[in-house]
Amino acid sequence: MGILDKIDVREEERETIVTTVVKSITLEKFLQLPETEPASEYIDGEVYQKPMLQGEHSRFQGKLVTTINEVAEPQKIALALPELRCTFSGATIVPDVTVFLRQRIPRIESGRIANRFESHPDWAIEILSPNQSQTKVLRNLLHCSKNGTELGWLILPEEDSILTVHSNQRIQLLAGIDPLPILSNIHLSLTVEQVFRWLNI
Amino acid sequence: MGILDKIDVREEERETIVTTVVKSITLEKFLQLPETEPASEYIDGEVYQKPMLQGEHSRFQGKLVTTINEVAEPQKIALALPELRCTFSGATIVPDVTVFLRQRIPRIESGRIANRFESHPDWAIEILSPNQSQTKVLRNLLHCSKNGTELGWLILPEEDSILTVHSNQRIQLLAGIDPLPILSNIHLSLTVEQVFRWLNI
Repeated sequence: MGILDKIDVREEERETIVTTVVKSITLEKFLQLPETEPASEYIDGEVYQKPMLQGEHSRFQGKLVTTINEVAEPQKIALALPELRCTFSGATIVPDVTVFLRQRIPRIESGRIANRFESHPDWAIEILSPNQSQTKVLRNLLHCSKNGTELGWLILPEEDSILTVHSNQRIQLLAGIDPLPILSNIHLSLTVEQVFRWLNI
Repeated sequence: MGILDKIDVREEERETIVTTVVKSITLEKFLQLPETEPASEYIDGEVYQKPMLQGEHSRFQGKLVTTINEVAEPQKIALALPELRCTFSGATIVPDVTVFLRQRIPRIESGRIANRFESHPDWAIEILSPNQSQTKVLRNLLHCSKNGTELGWLILPEEDSILTVHSNQRIQLLAGIDPLPILSNIHLSLTVEQVFRWLNI
């Protein structure tokens, strides 16, 4: 991690290590750092680097973008985007898939899609990687939920389950033939089982 | 795990392996099996064995029981119990700490506490062990929440955070000086930081 190690100072360390120079960082300073690969995120004053994409993860991400856009794009309702940095309410996160309602997509003067998204997604999807902290990913989705995101999905490959996050930080743990909640106005019908069947290629 | 391996048949296996004898088990049959050490739980048709207690986990469990009972017992409000098996709504789980309001504690004729608790706890506390599935523990707390439990805590030692589960499956992720929600009528005031300071003995 290199530079990330130095700037990742946890709250309790800040309190106890009074004689050490605190290597904290602001969101503004974080955003000036060069992008890392995989992307790094800044939330609750801490910096985290996302894990490298692996097979299952990559398949989910690609198939989700395709499946959502197949329905949402022709009807001009919304757009699904992979690995898009969203900066809002004191954090900058890069959900595996973000979906923005069409009228909320930032555009430059020419009408083209903007590069910087400084608002919450309408639907955020995260896929848990092996050995990744479930709490850190859930924290991203709760940050979204608190700041206007209608729907969050956390795909849990090891458990064949999907945890969904709704308004008011309400969650559901879904599996098997449970129907998945979809962003309003997108006419898509999926069960958890169907999503996991995408892995059988 | 031995016997547990054999009876842990996941939903999708039941569907696809049609020629194999399905080694499924009902809650009733599960309850007739001898207790394991660590305890085993049955939820959503699956059997899980809890991990062995380790230092941090054990300290949290002991200190939570003591702290809650110091306040709740003299006032005859509630009782905190460690590793108590609770069987309700098609599942049997053994939260690390359960708290029952006094009037809801089952008693035998002599007035003594009963051995079998066939109802949801009012407050359930789980402590995530290293390498334990966060989803499985969260599933227990959501099962509680759906069936009348007022409050759930999931202590996340690796993140110095506590995830709280409220009615209607609403969750919060708390850290640092965030005040922790406490079961109604128990006059206790704790922050996440204070709980984690219990580890510095």
